[in-house]
Order: sequence, then structure tokens, then C-alpha cells
Amino acid sequence: MGKQTYQFSTSATDFYFADSITHLKEIIDVKHAVFITDENIFKAHLKRFKNSKVIILKPGEAHKNQETVNSIIQQLIAFEADRKTILVGVGGGVVTDITGYVASTYMRGIKFGFVPTTLLALVDASIGGKNGIDIGVYKNIVGVTKQPSFILHDFSSLGTLPETEWHNGFAEIIKHACIKDAAMFKELQQHSFKYYFSKKKETALLIERNAKIKLKVVQKDEFEQADRKLLNFGHTLGHALENQYELSHGQAISIGMTYASHISEQLLGFKQTEAVVKTLEQYGLPTYFKFDKAKVFDVLKMDKKRERKEMNYILLEKIGKGVVKQIPLNQLEKIIQSL
Amino acid sequence: MGKQTYQFSTSATDFYFADSITHLKEIIDVKHAVFITDENIFKAHLKRFKNSKVIILKPGEAHKNQETVNSIIQQLIAFEADRKTILVGVGGGVVTDITGYVASTYMRGIKFGFVPTTLLALVDASIGGKNGIDIGVYKNIVGVTKQPSFILHDFSSLGTLPETEWHNGFAEIIKHACIKDAAMFKELQQHSFKYYFSKKKETALLIERNAKIKLKVVQKDEFEQADRKLLNFGHTLGHALENQYELSHGQAISIGMTYASHISEQLLGFKQTEAVVKTLEQYGLPTYFKFDKAKVFDVLKMDKKRERKEMNYILLEKIGKGVVKQIPLNQLEKIIQSL
Repeated sequence: MGKQTYQFSTSATDFYFADSITHLKEIIDVKHAVFITDENIFKAHLKRFKNSKVIILKPGEAHKNQETVNSIIQQLIAFEADRKTILVGVGGGVVTDITGYVASTYMRGIKFGFVPTTLLALVDASIGGKNGIDIGVYKNIVGVTKQPSFILHDFSSLGTLPETEWHNGFAEIIKHACIKDAAMFKELQQHSFKYYFSKKKETALLIERNAKIKLKVVQKDEFEQADRKLLNFGHTLGHALENQYELSHGQAISIGMTYASHISEQLLGFKQTEAVVKTLEQYGLPTYFKFDKAKVFDVLKMDKKRERKEMNYILLEKIGKGVVKQIPLNQLEKIIQSL
Repeated sequence: MGKQTYQFSTSATDFYFADSITHLKEIIDVKHAVFITDENIFKAHLKRFKNSKVIILKPGEAHKNQETVNSIIQQLIAFEADRKTILVGVGGGVVTDITGYVASTYMRGIKFGFVPTTLLALVDASIGGKNGIDIGVYKNIVGVTKQPSFILHDFSSLGTLPETEWHNGFAEIIKHACIKDAAMFKELQQHSFKYYFSKKKETALLIERNAKIKLKVVQKDEFEQADRKLLNFGHTLGHALENQYELSHGQAISIGMTYASHISEQLLGFKQTEAVVKTLEQYGLPTYFKFDKAKVFDVLKMDKKRERKEMNYILLEKIGKGVVKQIPLNQLEKIIQSL
């Protein structure tokens, strides 16, 4: 079990890559932990949670809301959780987002750690300390930035993941390639998700590579004043679509990246839209999508990257080089209409 | 208008003592502010809020809850508030607690400042960055620690405060004297709230003195690892009583200080209980109170200062010297029963 510690502005996170949840007892005092997971994971891995305090959520983004938070807090009070309690989120991005948010606000903040179990959570959602919930169609509009104490990668879960969850994860992996890593983009072009699905070692390397792309960005700009914004490539339109059309996060941002590539063409002369679209499709992801443009723009304009009358939109100069472009809202509205 | 800047661990707060809300436009760009206040203050000071974006809360601790937070967030979305928006809480402790909490979580955190209007908020509640809400009978069980950008003392409000609000504020002033300032305790013994009520200059000095007692403690221990715990003198029992018996905060902690003095007698040989009780009564505050001890202990044990099976209870060695005493829960239960 190899530990790698990453320092952030006010705290550090211990990473355990390509590991197993069975090592958790070597990391924390399990007796004083409360686990948060969802029904699917709980049922699939009953043995893991034996003799533990567990809070079980309904699965899915639709439950990443205040009602779920209220219910967790009631259960923490019932467990008599105090400031020495540690919350451990075992699951995908919904579980880790909510766990981090509750832990950051319960008694004004207690410790927490994650055991991500989906590809998306392993390469993206569990990393970086953005925790929070949705309010209706507005994704992650309430939350805090606070780093987990540890992230333990549990590889035993990957084998039981459904195919759609692999697609989801690859959306963020392709995103990392688009904005930061042209060499990885080439590698991805040569394969498909089925290749990784069957190759444990290659998948482990890919996960660690992606986690480290994100880690490096977050370490330099934890509170998203500059470079961290790039990680939102595909997310501005993606978030506006996701809860309105009940798309998975990976599907939504894949569509977002498709149109962001087209906008990059229009505004920056980006020339590789076709390659982006083809790669997304290779990994089982949707690209072009019919949506109500007026309705979607209404949600999109509340994106957290808006500053008054301008949106910080993430575009590509070329594959491997994302940039932040300030687009006036009225211009952006016309662009969205013309897509 | 004199500005005094206090630095905390990750941010600074600008203080404007003995000032007026009319100066607010010199501190912030009012055009990009959203005000949060309550119905009473809004009605009493309509002119202040002319042409501003205002969110008006129902007054009172009973509304310091998640429902109010939800409603504020909906209104912020309707105002199209973004990360450059500043929230300004104008009111007592309930308004400032909620404003700070919403601002710390909306879009993962936007700027906020306070215009405290009650004596209690001026000397205590607005200072120190503890923001949060209640869940049922559990006071401040959800929240974050984050400092406001500014605190503007508005003295024009003090003149219109009802007498009970003066009593409330003096509860925290007497608390400061008990734990940190024997000289101020002597001064308080010589007067009553009516004296300060009529003396503007003396009140201004008293407010600044108390704000600075708290500021000094918070600067040294923002996240309550040590000395900041002392500020909870009277609050452990007080919080357990407050929402169960619909007491005002000042009344609740006055009762809490009375019994904490008795516990100090029992455990530390404290000899000045009578002086504490007499002074509280001089300032219109209740002291002895009949309560359901089993029911109150059930809430008390969820106090944030519990660590597993021990409670960090704040006691007095002598007036002017508060101490933290770890009391095992089973011993504390017996003590509460015997009060």
C-alpha cells in the first residue's frame, strides 16, 4: 500500500492508488467512522459495511440535493457523531460530493475521506475538494471547497461497474487529454473503452495519470482563480443540459465538449473538432444533441463562471491546450442559438 | 470613518467602529450587493434599502434554519447573483449567522459583510466567522467558519432597540468579563443596563472593548482548538435550553452561566457565584430556571464541544479567568441532575 501525500493551501490529502478498501483499517480508526454510500454499492458489498455505522443514500444525481443532506445530518445526530468522527464516502461522484459537503458543514467541519468506486470518481470527482449539491436544475450551486484527508482507490469495485459507467469516466479522461495532454489524446484515439475494460494494468496507469493531471492543476489553483477553470471544458453547456434532460454527467459533458469544440472553431480557429467528436463516440459517448436552446441558455447563464455580463467559457486552441475565453452573454446567447 | 483591519488565518476583516450604515457606499459597490435583513429592520429602516436588492427574512431564531437558507438561495438565483456579488447582512445574530452561512456556500463561497444592529451582534455574534443554522433543537449544528470582509457598526440602530435586546447583549458582555476581564466585571457591577442605555459614549467604548476581547481570542485560535472554547462559557447548557424553552439567546446563556458558576464551585472551588448571579440580574437577565433535566441533557450531550465520552465544559477559576474542564459524560449527567 503506497501512500502519496499532496499538499493544498490549508490541508493535505493522502492518496492510495490502485489499492483496495480492505486497507481502510490501516488508514483510519474505523470505529469512529461513519460511512456514506448508496443502495447499489451497499447491496453489492454488504460485507464491507458489517459492524459499521452506515448511512445509505438513494443512488443518482437526482438525490444530490438538500433533502438528502438533511437526512444525513439527522442520522449523524442519531449516531451521536462529534468533531472527532470521520465521514467516509464510498461510491461515485454523487456520494463523494455529498459526503464532502456534509462533513464540511456538520459541526462547522469534521474530517472526511473518500473511497471512489466509479471510473469517473477515480479520475475526477473525488479529487480537488469541490463538494456540494444541486438545487433543481442548477448543478453544484451550493457547496464548499475543502480537501479530503485521504483518497483510497478501490480497484475491486471497477470489475463490477456497468459499461455506461466506463463511458462516463472516459468523458473526463478525454477532457483532460483535450485541455492538457495531447500525447494521451493520441493514445486514446488508438483504443476504445473495451481495450481498457480488459486490461487492468493499463487502466491503473491511465487512472493514476488522470488523477495526477487534475491534482497538479488543483494544487496550483485550488480556488479556481485561473488554470483550474480549464477543468470545466464541456461543463458550462453540459451542466445546463444534465439535470434538464436527465443525462448522465459523462453524457452531458461529452455533448458540452462537442459544442465547445465548434465554438472554438468559430472564435479561435480550432481545427480538430472532428477528432474530438470521433474519440468521444469511440468511448460510447453522445455528441450532437437536440435541445431547447432558449431554455438551456436560461440555466447556462447561472453558471458559476459567469462574471456579471460575461461568461468565462473554456475553449481549445488545439488538442492539449485549453484556454479561458471571456464571452459577453449576449454574444454567447447568439452562438448557442446558432449551434 | 476609521477603518481597523484584523487579519485571520486565510483572510482579513475591516472593522468600522461607532459608525453608520450611511457610509456603506464608501466600503462596497452597493450596485453589486444583495442585502439580507429581517422584516422588523426592513420596516423600521425602509429608506436604507431603497433601490437595493433585498432579501427579507422572518425575524427570530426559529427561522435560523434550512428552510430560510433554501428561500435565500432561490432569491439569489432570481437576482442572478454571481461570484462577484457581495452579501450584506443587516441585523442581529440570526441575520448575520445566516448571511455568512449562505455566502460561504452559494457558488462555493462569495464575499460577505455585516452591519450588526443589536447590542449582542455588535459585541459578539457578528465577530469571529462562525456562521450557521440550527436543526430543530440543535443550535448551530450546521455551519462553516469563514470571516466577513467587513463589519460596519451602525450606531443609529441602537437607539431604537427594545430593552430586552439590551439585556441580551449584556449577557455576552458579562460573559467576556467573567472569562477574560475582571476589571470590566467591576465596572459592570457598578452600573446597570439603564446607565449605558442613556450614555452613548460609554456604550461605544464598552462595545469596542468587548469586540476587541473577542477579536483577540479569535485571531489566536480561529478554529477553536484551545482558548476560543472559553467564549462558550454558559453556552453548553444555554444552547440546550434555548430552543427547547424558547428563551432568547441572552436569557439562555445567562441561565447557563449561573449553573456553570455552580459547577465551577463544585469542581474548582470557585467562590464568586453570588457576584455573577447578582450582576446578571442587574442587567435584566434570568438566572435560576426550572427545566426537565433528562430532556435537556439529551440535547446537551450533542454539544459541539463533546469529544466522544467527554465534554469540554467552560468553568471559572475566578472572575476574569475561564478554563476548559473535561468532564466525563456520566459525571456531567449526575451534576446536571443535582443542580
